[in-house]
Amino acid sequence: MTIEQLDSLFDRLFPICRSISGHGLRESLAIFAEQMPLHLESTPSGTQVFDWTVPHEWHIESATLTAPDGRVVADFADHNLRVVNYSAPMIGKVSLEALRPQLHTLPQQPDLIPYVTSYYQPNWGFCLTHNELNQLIPGEYQVRIDSQFTPGEINYGSTLLTGDTAQEFLLSSYLCHPSMANNELSGPLVLLGLYQRLLRWPKRRFSYRFVLAPETIGSLCYLDRYGEHLKQHCIGGLVLTCLGGPETALSIKLARNEHCLLNQLVRRLASERPQQWKIREFTPCHGSDERQYCSPGFNLPVAQAARTVYGAFAEYHTSGDTKEFMQVDQLVAAIDQLEQLLLQHENSGVFERTNPYGEPQLGRRGLYPNMNSPHSHAKSTDSLLDGRTQLMAMQWILNLADGQHTLPQMAHRAGMPLSTLLAVVPRLEEADLIRFTAMQPEEKPCR
Amino acid sequence: MTIEQLDSLFDRLFPICRSISGHGLRESLAIFAEQMPLHLESTPSGTQVFDWTVPHEWHIESATLTAPDGRVVADFADHNLRVVNYSAPMIGKVSLEALRPQLHTLPQQPDLIPYVTSYYQPNWGFCLTHNELNQLIPGEYQVRIDSQFTPGEINYGSTLLTGDTAQEFLLSSYLCHPSMANNELSGPLVLLGLYQRLLRWPKRRFSYRFVLAPETIGSLCYLDRYGEHLKQHCIGGLVLTCLGGPETALSIKLARNEHCLLNQLVRRLASERPQQWKIREFTPCHGSDERQYCSPGFNLPVAQAARTVYGAFAEYHTSGDTKEFMQVDQLVAAIDQLEQLLLQHENSGVFERTNPYGEPQLGRRGLYPNMNSPHSHAKSTDSLLDGRTQLMAMQWILNLADGQHTLPQMAHRAGMPLSTLLAVVPRLEEADLIRFTAMQPEEKPCR
Amino acid sequence: MTIEQLDSLFDRLFPICRSISGHGLRESLAIFAEQMPLHLESTPSGTQVFDWTVPHEWHIESATLTAPDGRVVADFADHNLRVVNYSAPMIGKVSLEALRPQLHTLPQQPDLIPYVTSYYQPNWGFCLTHNELNQLIPGEYQVRIDSQFTPGEINYGSTLLTGDTAQEFLLSSYLCHPSMANNELSGPLVLLGLYQRLLRWPKRRFSYRFVLAPETIGSLCYLDRYGEHLKQHCIGGLVLTCLGGPETALSIKLARNEHCLLNQLVRRLASERPQQWKIREFTPCHGSDERQYCSPGFNLPVAQAARTVYGAFAEYHTSGDTKEFMQVDQLVAAIDQLEQLLLQHENSGVFERTNPYGEPQLGRRGLYPNMNSPHSHAKSTDSLLDGRTQLMAMQWILNLADGQHTLPQMAHRAGMPLSTLLAVVPRLEEADLIRFTAMQPEEKPCR
Repeated sequence: MTIEQLDSLFDRLFPICRSISGHGLRESLAIFAEQMPLHLESTPSGTQVFDWTVPHEWHIESATLTAPDGRVVADFADHNLRVVNYSAPMIGKVSLEALRPQLHTLPQQPDLIPYVTSYYQPNWGFCLTHNELNQLIPGEYQVRIDSQFTPGEINYGSTLLTGDTAQEFLLSSYLCHPSMANNELSGPLVLLGLYQRLLRWPKRRFSYRFVLAPETIGSLCYLDRYGEHLKQHCIGGLVLTCLGGPETALSIKLARNEHCLLNQLVRRLASERPQQWKIREFTPCHGSDERQYCSPGFNLPVAQAARTVYGAFAEYHTSGDTKEFMQVDQLVAAIDQLEQLLLQHENSGVFERTNPYGEPQLGRRGLYPNMNSPHSHAKSTDSLLDGRTQLMAMQWILNLADGQHTLPQMAHRAGMPLSTLLAVVPRLEEADLIRFTAMQPEEKPCR
Repeated sequence: MTIEQLDSLFDRLFPICRSISGHGLRESLAIFAEQMPLHLESTPSGTQVFDWTVPHEWHIESATLTAPDGRVVADFADHNLRVVNYSAPMIGKVSLEALRPQLHTLPQQPDLIPYVTSYYQPNWGFCLTHNELNQLIPGEYQVRIDSQFTPGEINYGSTLLTGDTAQEFLLSSYLCHPSMANNELSGPLVLLGLYQRLLRWPKRRFSYRFVLAPETIGSLCYLDRYGEHLKQHCIGGLVLTCLGGPETALSIKLARNEHCLLNQLVRRLASERPQQWKIREFTPCHGSDERQYCSPGFNLPVAQAARTVYGAFAEYHTSGDTKEFMQVDQLVAAIDQLEQLLLQHENSGVFERTNPYGEPQLGRRGLYPNMNSPHSHAKSTDSLLDGRTQLMAMQWILNLADGQHTLPQMAHRAGMPLSTLLAVVPRLEEADLIRFTAMQPEEKPCR
Repeated sequence: MTIEQLDSLFDRLFPICRSISGHGLRESLAIFAEQMPLHLESTPSGTQVFDWTVPHEWHIESATLTAPDGRVVADFADHNLRVVNYSAPMIGKVSLEALRPQLHTLPQQPDLIPYVTSYYQPNWGFCLTHNELNQLIPGEYQVRIDSQFTPGEINYGSTLLTGDTAQEFLLSSYLCHPSMANNELSGPLVLLGLYQRLLRWPKRRFSYRFVLAPETIGSLCYLDRYGEHLKQHCIGGLVLTCLGGPETALSIKLARNEHCLLNQLVRRLASERPQQWKIREFTPCHGSDERQYCSPGFNLPVAQAARTVYGAFAEYHTSGDTKEFMQVDQLVAAIDQLEQLLLQHENSGVFERTNPYGEPQLGRRGLYPNMNSPHSHAKSTDSLLDGRTQLMAMQWILNLADGQHTLPQMAHRAGMPLSTLLAVVPRLEEADLIRFTAMQPEEKPCR
């Protein structure tokens, strides 16, 4: 996925008026389905999913708010955010005073239009800049919101890249915000970029499941259908959100399941490379679909990855959340960094020695100096002169590869950087000295 | 229980010469049985209870020590403490020199009479103030201790306030010290006050067992009969002792079982409200009947509550431990504070979500803003303006109500005050979103 | 074992040219077998032991390196270290330039001969002081190494001192270094001294297994034969190495199994008596036979004891590792100190109360004051005036003797020195109040 391809996709997706249901959602999913083999599914309106009921679809044709002097002060045709998302239909004349409660603005950011939704309770309303509000003249306003609620469905799509095992890593993002960049399109575009990277990996220990669905209700519908499967197979996951913007580090909101491998790995990385990785502790109080994946009945080891995170940028949920704010090259950087994380996660699990009794004889494998002399004390093998670091990393892994220790736990016990241990894992696997141990989602490594 | 009622009961109980057996004990139990439906029981002398043998009853009619000049220097009729409790009978003439080892005084507190006992080895003796001792003249003293040991029994009483479950909280105090206030009557009187409070609770999750027995041998007799029952049902408990005196905070000596709910709760309270609650770590080296309840074969989650604690006040085990030292209004304050503790303990256990999959839809229950707009970010519901604190408390509980977390553990993970979480528990129960999970004494929440 | 006996044994053993196989090894084992009933065994050359193959025996008759001027510059008859241990045979004339790679010296210690081995890859070579190397003249050198590799065996010996249980404590040291003192003979000599001490103990809770074998390949051969037995019976162990030299404290490299009783004990001792005991954390990267015993398939709770440890003294693996450096009296001190450690380990395990219900009545056993008076508050029994320390130690043990707590864990919870608790264990056992609980190697106390 080149930066140009991402940029072009962004430009097709941005103008679409998405919501948690309806044409805009389907159109957006179809665009992603051109780029990756999405299996598209839906759940009908009225379906009970856990504690929720799937709402009717929301369709909107047009909406205008016309001032007493005939000037159109808000027009859905200009900007998707002009109308409350899921606004009820409304036609009529309303005095400025009666209109005020239906008008949403941002007094602190007087040039931006807010993003307002009311999915589950009928409301109608418009969104203005605060400067526009201040210039409204008294009198009767003509309101026309040509929307409707119709039985339909919630749409979502997913695909699976199979690996050596049936254990799955979940990558999930959401499609439902109209015309916003960092807090909408950054997530699905990075998900697509990761799909294309992982497709080319020569080997995947895990299978990778990619999910695109509207936030909250979409992931609930997905869990309604695949939650039991995920409970049995999901050994890690990331919700992708807000991956653009000016921040240089990526930050991970840890999974609720405190000791899962992904949390262990990310904690270690954040301590070793704080410029690259920041930690946010788990909270159910705000966030994205990890709130559903981490609900107590599922408790999937799913974390959330972000860069310039909701709540930490003033443009959040406003017309200011644009491509210029998001920056497409930050998405490429996120794809790069998250691909590395997934590679490290692949090698960070639990290993077992093929023959766990005694030390292996490394010398005959060229992994240890065969002659024990004053010179060899500083060597790790007969041929390498990089000191004993690599040898020590191998010795620690060979000692702790007992099916009980993850690689971050080994790094902790060895007092060595995780990256040093990760670097020798392939050599030990090639030498058939250790083998990867499939994780049991309910048992390992989440103890 | 008004302060006047407590005061009046105190005045009836104080003069009685209690011991670990005999008339004074029975008379005292009978007075408490007027106020609460005590089931009175006994264990006969000579019975083997664990490592102990129930002693004979001790009866005393009179005791005088008469100086060579005919002056009575110690008279049991004046003060119960004048004679060693469980003193053997003795009639005879003894020189001052031979008498000295039988006379007990407090050189550091020359105006107070000490409290001395010798339950399990025959001894005779008198207790004097040190000033009295210093004024004794040489010569032959007439000793007359008209006591006897007779086969009888150890008496004790208990009652149960039933609750929603058969799981029991134990409230235990002791009756055996004659004519002392803080270290004797404060405990049983607070126990009675709590009985009357809990009787009026509209709902009790747990059953509450109230026990009055002589210290050590009495609780051993009780455990001999009910220990197995308590092992199966007791999920918490408090030994009540020394609840009067000048200290403002109550202090809790934690149960041996380090992780029991009561310990978790009290540790949290002591950190959040240090003016109200102090912690004493468990020790088997001194204390009261929790030493028996927490012996390794029982290991009941029983703590001990006190205010001005044994060893920390100079009047301990002396004639100075009077009503004036104890103060009846401190008992009322203790009843108030312990009732609050028991209420908090009722709601501090383990809860489960009724439907644990996904987040519940709080909006349709009036617990969450239905419209997501810039204004609602600071609200917890459409109608409340108290910020998001209450909503966050609900979200944390709904996320951690998995049958694995106690409320103090939730407070720790959420970084929120326990009281904030406790405040929303009833709303979540009323909304049928969570249900209380009965604790297994051997398993939960003592992990 | 007097210091004179150790000194005399040392002098017999030092000149022998040991290696991991051959006559010198057998001769050395035979000398130890005079002093303790060693069961001598062997594993034939060519046998596969785990990842290793037992090598042929190495025999050497003589070796000389003669300069162009006829001067013999290195002669095996002078010093065992002159020839690379396991050097291949070689006869021929070699120029100084071609010879250099076969000559091993210590440039930083120009007067010492290094100890060089090449067990598993054929090499030939001589070891010189660096000063000698600098004085070599150009020209053709006559090389004569009269060695050979023949099918044979690896030899080792062991013996068992039986105790009350079949649970075993392993004491292991190695015989394979020729003519070195601290890093060779100190270990076997201390092992012999401990054997003779433990033989005279009136009572042993555990059985004690003593093993002498060449390092690495020897312990692997031993594990090949007895590893499964040790997995079932070994509840602790020490590899003995480098127990002489100038250091005053002994240091323990902890076992891999972090929570085993021996680790708990040593951590406690090191914190209470830092002048006597130092801790080294476990590492698989260097050390001795604990690397085999602690390999993941065995994971025996075997630590390593040393004084002036490999890597921390400049004479390590050189001709400078002499009796003068080692000092025989340091071996006696090590025997004394390790005997104490083993005694403490005997009493540091898990105990159970014979009757765990309620407190035992200590008074009738003379362990508690029968009269509770102001005087007795400072006494632990009627007859002892040592304050309440001893009583408190007893009370803690009686409370925590639940089959779940080791003595170091009790000391931690009680906040008392381990030695204070250890001092009362015999009294409580004699009074039949507690009984020792046999440890299960796989379960207890390694939790």
